Amino acid sequence: MSFVRNAWYVAGWSTDFGDDLVPLTLLAQNLVVYRTSKGQIAALEDRCPHRLLPLSKGKRIGDTIQCGYHGMTFGADGACVRVPGQSNLPKSAYVESYPVLERHGIVFIWMGDADKADPALAFDLPELGQEGWHIHHGDKLHIQANYLNVAENLVDPAHVSFVHPTTLGNAASENVPVHVKTADEVIVAWRWIRDAEPIGFFKKFGGFTGNVDRWHYYYLHMPSTAVIDFGSSDAKLELPEDQRNKGVRIFALHFVTPVTEDYTIDHWMHLRNTALGDDAASDQMDAMFRVAFAEDKAILEAVHQEEQRPQKRKPIRIAIDKAPNVYRKRIRDRIEAEATDDLGDPVAPVFVQHD
Amino acid sequence: MSFVRNAWYVAGWSTDFGDDLVPLTLLAQNLVVYRTSKGQIAALEDRCPHRLLPLSKGKRIGDTIQCGYHGMTFGADGACVRVPGQSNLPKSAYVESYPVLERHGIVFIWMGDADKADPALAFDLPELGQEGWHIHHGDKLHIQANYLNVAENLVDPAHVSFVHPTTLGNAASENVPVHVKTADEVIVAWRWIRDAEPIGFFKKFGGFTGNVDRWHYYYLHMPSTAVIDFGSSDAKLELPEDQRNKGVRIFALHFVTPVTEDYTIDHWMHLRNTALGDDAASDQMDAMFRVAFAEDKAILEAVHQEEQRPQKRKPIRIAIDKAPNVYRKRIRDRIEAEATDDLGDPVAPVFVQHD
Amino acid sequence: MSFVRNAWYVAGWSTDFGDDLVPLTLLAQNLVVYRTSKGQIAALEDRCPHRLLPLSKGKRIGDTIQCGYHGMTFGADGACVRVPGQSNLPKSAYVESYPVLERHGIVFIWMGDADKADPALAFDLPELGQEGWHIHHGDKLHIQANYLNVAENLVDPAHVSFVHPTTLGNAASENVPVHVKTADEVIVAWRWIRDAEPIGFFKKFGGFTGNVDRWHYYYLHMPSTAVIDFGSSDAKLELPEDQRNKGVRIFALHFVTPVTEDYTIDHWMHLRNTALGDDAASDQMDAMFRVAFAEDKAILEAVHQEEQRPQKRKPIRIAIDKAPNVYRKRIRDRIEAEATDDLGDPVAPVFVQHD
Repeated sequence: MSFVRNAWYVAGWSTDFGDDLVPLTLLAQNLVVYRTSKGQIAALEDRCPHRLLPLSKGKRIGDTIQCGYHGMTFGADGACVRVPGQSNLPKSAYVESYPVLERHGIVFIWMGDADKADPALAFDLPELGQEGWHIHHGDKLHIQANYLNVAENLVDPAHVSFVHPTTLGNAASENVPVHVKTADEVIVAWRWIRDAEPIGFFKKFGGFTGNVDRWHYYYLHMPSTAVIDFGSSDAKLELPEDQRNKGVRIFALHFVTPVTEDYTIDHWMHLRNTALGDDAASDQMDAMFRVAFAEDKAILEAVHQEEQRPQKRKPIRIAIDKAPNVYRKRIRDRIEAEATDDLGDPVAPVFVQHD
Repeated sequence: MSFVRNAWYVAGWSTDFGDDLVPLTLLAQNLVVYRTSKGQIAALEDRCPHRLLPLSKGKRIGDTIQCGYHGMTFGADGACVRVPGQSNLPKSAYVESYPVLERHGIVFIWMGDADKADPALAFDLPELGQEGWHIHHGDKLHIQANYLNVAENLVDPAHVSFVHPTTLGNAASENVPVHVKTADEVIVAWRWIRDAEPIGFFKKFGGFTGNVDRWHYYYLHMPSTAVIDFGSSDAKLELPEDQRNKGVRIFALHFVTPVTEDYTIDHWMHLRNTALGDDAASDQMDAMFRVAFAEDKAILEAVHQEEQRPQKRKPIRIAIDKAPNVYRKRIRDRIEAEATDDLGDPVAPVFVQHD
Repeated sequence: MSFVRNAWYVAGWSTDFGDDLVPLTLLAQNLVVYRTSKGQIAALEDRCPHRLLPLSKGKRIGDTIQCGYHGMTFGADGACVRVPGQSNLPKSAYVESYPVLERHGIVFIWMGDADKADPALAFDLPELGQEGWHIHHGDKLHIQANYLNVAENLVDPAHVSFVHPTTLGNAASENVPVHVKTADEVIVAWRWIRDAEPIGFFKKFGGFTGNVDRWHYYYLHMPSTAVIDFGSSDAKLELPEDQRNKGVRIFALHFVTPVTEDYTIDHWMHLRNTALGDDAASDQMDAMFRVAFAEDKAILEAVHQEEQRPQKRKPIRIAIDKAPNVYRKRIRDRIEAEATDDLGDPVAPVFVQHD
């Protein structure tokens, strides 16, 4: 399994969860998720410990779930509260419960050891709470591919000209060098395309008529959250890198959640410093994003298919792969650290003395 | 393989078999079944020994089957009677034939050693031949689940309130204790719900208006035939257990046939002591059964799916599992006995004497 | 793998390939095929060595292919000509290219060692270039079966009466002996049915009213090209075997190309010495062939399915299997020879002398 377990993963938006029992798969674990009468979201193992029926096929009784096969009933904390036909509750009658965090309309679930579930570890962005920024929750893009390929693609500016020639990129950017900084925990790749024709997206949305300076910053947060900070400003302004807020600026957030090794959901949303409260603008942007992300999906699924086939040679690595390479190494390190962690603290060796 | 081989399994009703070559799978074996001109049913291995084409894709020539590839021809006993292009019939040119038994409109096939195929071992019920009972052959319910789960479900009264709340059960029965007797070869579980509102089924069918005494007896015959004896009588009569014929009584028979490890057909029919010869009543009961059995199918298939997924903990067992537990143990014992049987009689050890 | 690699396999007709990037699978290898501006067909490995995206999902730029993910670009010979974002071209940046041969409107690809790709080894037939013969390229029949079963079926006259009773055969031929000659490299099976009712095909096409002499010659060329030479002539002529051109004669060519172990494409076409230039006759023949080949497909796919199931006994072999048996042995020998070949020339053993 190539999953980092000790992390907050996005399970959906706040509006996705209410009274209904929603079955979800995260990191190959099946969960049932619902909102209690107090408004808190519960995430439980979706399997009755008796005959294994998914609890999501059962019935909600108040804040508990009654199994649809023999009526065994579990609270929002996973503890069994009733076994029909007997008065005692066996110790083994429980389902696992998962820590949940809800913030900015985003629902995170912690998939690792519950005692490590620190809310401070969940992704956050200062602008998410600031005035002057419009938050818009987008879609869930279902991709038949491993999540590492999906996340890697989000810190890879080099693909834009080829995968999104008419939506997010154009030929002007093909040979513009990409800067990569991998020294910090968040990997960053970026490039500025100065004094070029605006891309389709900003032509339509930014209202630019002449040439623009265009930037793309790709931030990849461990284990698989990407922030794409992109925007344009009139080329005549010669905008410095640290004054991007003066241009038309968009943060596209991608919460990449592994469903299984072969299936990933990219929960995407955006933040923007323009067209505040303008729903028509949001719809227009969604429509454009959908076209672009469908282009990514097609490529990522084709690559995933091909990766399942026999490979005679090792794939080659080229200059543009720096950020993806660092990212994959960090994931491997995190997974290995978690595996080692499971072994417990090292034990002093025992020496048997022969005298 | 979790199959008991030396047993009669139901392949269908008498009306299912005529001149046509019917392909069937029982216990993961492919058979071709047809009725000869003398009215007897033949069941043969559905595979030509030459190039493996299923014989069911061939052509019937009188009481023989001609393979659809090169015309090799086999009699109803499996012996080869013709090899086009040569005059001799090789010794290895045969297909296996299976013993068949037809009784009460039910077709049984013996899937084990032919010399053990004793008709006395096939399921029978005295009422099947008696006057005062109406026999009605029902459907074949196809279930994507292992047959043990299907059979187990039929000796499990505890699921009725939860899986069939509006059809066969209601909340009144949830906490009524279940009696289980596993001393004899046929496992029995039963319970009486005294002085309760009639369930949907008997409201509609028994014409009861006031409270009733309701019984459910679940008999499970090895390896996988279930008889559900259920009925109701006016609660004022305080009916003793051994006088159930005085109430409205129904025997639902379930002939559970393993197709593969993951696929089971439940051939169901019923016997009743009321509405004799009333086809409209039969249709009405079929319709109600279909709704109820679809509820079982949904649960059993969800459980089967979940059983294929990785399991971190052993499923727990609770009080209501007594009959299923005994049943599964008996199946394991039978399978092990058959495997040991295949080894032949024990041979006296040979002692080599050193003097 | 049961593939002979050092051989020319048919990938399609000349008309199948033009400017488009056509993805094809031959011998479980994925290729991308296109015609260059000079009219030559290029066949390349359909996988970018960088991130494995199939090149067929990329874009043609002149005679090169630009990968659809990061724009790495390859020439018709498989060499990399551009890596966006860097100036040097790594040595490992290439895709395999496959020798291609185009002749009589047929496109052959060599799937083995390029230095052994001798055009003289590709199938040819003198009549393909002669006057008095009409060439008609037919369909591609997709069959979910191993190619050996498909090829074997084409050197097996014995199946015709049973698989094609109303199209290519009739009952008259069932017991007519088949001659087989396996001494030469091309295996031949044949039979003459003298003075019999014409089959449906020649009734319709040859215009015969009385009895005919009918022949079928089945030639199987290694590794998997079949020529079926069949025809009829008026029975009164008592046509000698070596004067078949005097009758209505058809060569049906079957280029059997393994796609995977479980999937085969039979590219079929025909040559005839009658109805020259008559497109309506070609259409009529295609229609009749399609019906007959669909009969083969149904049988071959059923056999393939059955071969995947567990087998308790070895299939038996009968008199009519002589040609298929010899064919399969030759394939095994060729595959083994190729495997041994890969080991290189034998090396003289080294003796260490102890004195």
